Amino acid sequence: MTHTLAEIADATGLALLGDGSVSVTSPAEPGVANRDQLALAMDAKFEKALTDTDALAAVVWQDADWQAFGLKGVLVAQRPRVAMARITHTFQHRPDIPEGIHPSALVDPSADVSPGAWIGPFSVIGSGVKLGPDARIGSHCSIGRDAEVGARAVLHDGVRIGARCRIGDDFIAQANSVVGADGFSFEPPQRGAVEAAKETGRIDGARTTGFLRIHSLAAVEIGDDVEIGAATTIDRGTISPTRIGHGTKIDNQVQIGHNVQVGSTCLICAQTGIAGSTVVGDRVVLGGKTGIADHVQIGSDVVCAAGSMVAGNLPSNNVYLGVPAQQRDKATRQIIALRRLPKLISEVVEVKKKLGL
Amino acid sequence: MTHTLAEIADATGLALLGDGSVSVTSPAEPGVANRDQLALAMDAKFEKALTDTDALAAVVWQDADWQAFGLKGVLVAQRPRVAMARITHTFQHRPDIPEGIHPSALVDPSADVSPGAWIGPFSVIGSGVKLGPDARIGSHCSIGRDAEVGARAVLHDGVRIGARCRIGDDFIAQANSVVGADGFSFEPPQRGAVEAAKETGRIDGARTTGFLRIHSLAAVEIGDDVEIGAATTIDRGTISPTRIGHGTKIDNQVQIGHNVQVGSTCLICAQTGIAGSTVVGDRVVLGGKTGIADHVQIGSDVVCAAGSMVAGNLPSNNVYLGVPAQQRDKATRQIIALRRLPKLISEVVEVKKKLGL
Amino acid sequence: MTHTLAEIADATGLALLGDGSVSVTSPAEPGVANRDQLALAMDAKFEKALTDTDALAAVVWQDADWQAFGLKGVLVAQRPRVAMARITHTFQHRPDIPEGIHPSALVDPSADVSPGAWIGPFSVIGSGVKLGPDARIGSHCSIGRDAEVGARAVLHDGVRIGARCRIGDDFIAQANSVVGADGFSFEPPQRGAVEAAKETGRIDGARTTGFLRIHSLAAVEIGDDVEIGAATTIDRGTISPTRIGHGTKIDNQVQIGHNVQVGSTCLICAQTGIAGSTVVGDRVVLGGKTGIADHVQIGSDVVCAAGSMVAGNLPSNNVYLGVPAQQRDKATRQIIALRRLPKLISEVVEVKKKLGL
Repeated sequence: MTHTLAEIADATGLALLGDGSVSVTSPAEPGVANRDQLALAMDAKFEKALTDTDALAAVVWQDADWQAFGLKGVLVAQRPRVAMARITHTFQHRPDIPEGIHPSALVDPSADVSPGAWIGPFSVIGSGVKLGPDARIGSHCSIGRDAEVGARAVLHDGVRIGARCRIGDDFIAQANSVVGADGFSFEPPQRGAVEAAKETGRIDGARTTGFLRIHSLAAVEIGDDVEIGAATTIDRGTISPTRIGHGTKIDNQVQIGHNVQVGSTCLICAQTGIAGSTVVGDRVVLGGKTGIADHVQIGSDVVCAAGSMVAGNLPSNNVYLGVPAQQRDKATRQIIALRRLPKLISEVVEVKKKLGL
Repeated sequence: MTHTLAEIADATGLALLGDGSVSVTSPAEPGVANRDQLALAMDAKFEKALTDTDALAAVVWQDADWQAFGLKGVLVAQRPRVAMARITHTFQHRPDIPEGIHPSALVDPSADVSPGAWIGPFSVIGSGVKLGPDARIGSHCSIGRDAEVGARAVLHDGVRIGARCRIGDDFIAQANSVVGADGFSFEPPQRGAVEAAKETGRIDGARTTGFLRIHSLAAVEIGDDVEIGAATTIDRGTISPTRIGHGTKIDNQVQIGHNVQVGSTCLICAQTGIAGSTVVGDRVVLGGKTGIADHVQIGSDVVCAAGSMVAGNLPSNNVYLGVPAQQRDKATRQIIALRRLPKLISEVVEVKKKLGL
Repeated sequence: MTHTLAEIADATGLALLGDGSVSVTSPAEPGVANRDQLALAMDAKFEKALTDTDALAAVVWQDADWQAFGLKGVLVAQRPRVAMARITHTFQHRPDIPEGIHPSALVDPSADVSPGAWIGPFSVIGSGVKLGPDARIGSHCSIGRDAEVGARAVLHDGVRIGARCRIGDDFIAQANSVVGADGFSFEPPQRGAVEAAKETGRIDGARTTGFLRIHSLAAVEIGDDVEIGAATTIDRGTISPTRIGHGTKIDNQVQIGHNVQVGSTCLICAQTGIAGSTVVGDRVVLGGKTGIADHVQIGSDVVCAAGSMVAGNLPSNNVYLGVPAQQRDKATRQIIALRRLPKLISEVVEVKKKLGL
């Protein structure tokens, strides 16, 4: 996968300085890059590493004195992470999925598999499934009856797409993720402990003797340009589908409960859980291990810091953190105050002594 | 799957008013229900939606003036979620598992597969396995040597049941769940950091140089009427089995450690973790993301709110919450007090100034 | 799997007292052990159970008066958990994986499968893969192109090893675990809500309209003697590999982000998450549900109690706990002080009344 600097400049839109004919095989950290690699040194902190590098080409920070490092040519990064996205796009490995439809794959005759779609070994494509052009299905996947997966989807190995789920274009599912598990929704035939606790804060002898199962009749609908992480699970809706909006990116081991509605262009970090019927707006960022209660409304343009436990509605356009989650400034003041608390207790003891209390 | 209202009344036990001969194809939210659907409007808040609905039949709240909405017939829900359970039961989709034993499935000749059991493509049934009548095994499942799975079990795709595990009747396992992983139990040959920290609160130079593995010789025993969620994992016991009691329902991404004993009729919500050798009573409800330490006793009829971190024993018949978890009233008082703390600090400053302290 | 006491003494290094010719089939708890079993009674608390046991042989605590229990022979445990490791090693079940290379397994002709390696049904071994001697690969596994897995590895069913990942000897992967998912790394083309929140604590109308994907070009490198739990996920590095050191043990449902570097001989308990680019030292113990932020440095010989949320660097050789995590003594003082807070508020009210404030 050799590219010249000029080709990479073309592909990434980064400015080229110096000799565009230098060829590189892959990007590398500047301290370890060899003569054939593209040193990634997009911050002045890499100055020392560049001084010692064997690389002849690099991506450098703005205003870097690149010729002083003995480089033949460079690309200039204005926003390092944007440059990183473009560079890694250029050098990305294609998914490790064999070309074509593997002879061991089971594709139902009624499935509508678009031209150019690849299906890996031991995958099972159910009846009535629609699979978009150039979809890439790994090994050991299953796509259930009447499910739809759009163009250019990439399903890594062991992904489960349940029956009747509908997924847009450019979907990526990391290995062993699950779309369309049944919702977790049970009801005791008589008043049980949860109802008692919610109403009175106590159990009061309420004894559940069993549960009726509320079945999930609906499916999951996912927009375009969505990615879900490894071992992430998204449950079906009860009557109407669980929904994930366009452009939303979901990390590993995230749990999305039944009936949840997630907006577009959200980032949901690893091990976050969103309980049933909660609604999340657009452009929401949930840090790792965020928990959100059921039947809650999260506005748009909300950021929850990692580890937040959200028990109630969160208005739009604000930053929240903590257990339970509060507006960021309030939460921070309390965390700081809590650190003073042991000393405060001593002070009050002293005050009371002084007052003879 | 068309049913008349009279048939649904029969199947669900809900009271029928009006014309029982109206046919419906599926339930729907009242705002979007069409003429062939059963509008679900089990609360007076749906009055507006019913006014505009195209549906001819509905499930309505008690005392609803259903004729005013132009409905031809209705079913009346006394407890909406119980009605929801019964209605969704009537309209549920059967599991998306092909009939019979798929030719690609590998069933060991010594396995005892009951009549009526179905086994999906690429599933592997080990030697000595017993599989109950009418069990439904999806694709890509594995059931290990000498494991037993009871009648009417439903294993969705990619489920792993380890060797020698024993599971009762009416078991449901969502996709990619794992029963019978090895326990996480390691011991340094010499005193290590964990022992030092537990004994002294410090590390004091205790340096673990490696671990001996405590192997899991026992299996997992699961009662009747149990459900486990997608990507949930249940570890084996060391000498005696890990146990899950009858009627307990476990959500997605729950982790049950080795030797844990969970009682009957519990609800364990998503992303909860129960560490090794802990005992949980009957009718316990654990909210999402609850964490319970190892070797702890949780009584019966306990509710832990979502996000609770339980470090010690919890007596029966009470509600707990918080990090660390405490009895609900205590925890709530502390959360409210903490919100006042920044102001309290200013007040004490003022008091001290007044007193010249 | 019958052994004589003398054989077990030989295999475990435990001291034998009495008749070494007694045969046992398996270990059992003393209260339920039958005549053919080895009662495990490594603590004086089992005295009562031993009095009633049917077992003829036991592992007992030091100084136990074993002849008084009617036992014919015993092994003496100095450190119970070390004895447990050695005993369970002796009686362990071999992995439930069929011998040899199963005819349904797909092994690329270019893969280098060492003699003695076994590969289970429906597993897929990619091109250029190197598989060490006596490796045991379960059913439904996939090992991607050019990946390497060392000697004596045990991959349980449904494990995914991504392309180009390199894993040392004696690796154990529990069912449905994933090594080599893509990192979760996205960047808005313009300044988005996360940048705004980090810089100002507010959103201020920053609106992300989409994300560029930073692709994961590197793989995962895992040392020798590493174990990972069921449904655990380890992401690839961006430019350099994500790394797990020798002898580190990882429990179920743990998430290791892209570029993370974990040292050697660590214990990482269930449902822990380590965000991207964080560095963890050697001999670190992370209790269950620990969360560690991205780009953080955790020293060596650190213990984090279960449920810790780590937002910044943690110096070596110390114990931490809490949300956010602090040095243990500080955190404990605050937790205790918080319990006094409601009373403190009343006291300050009283003080202010007394002072006429």
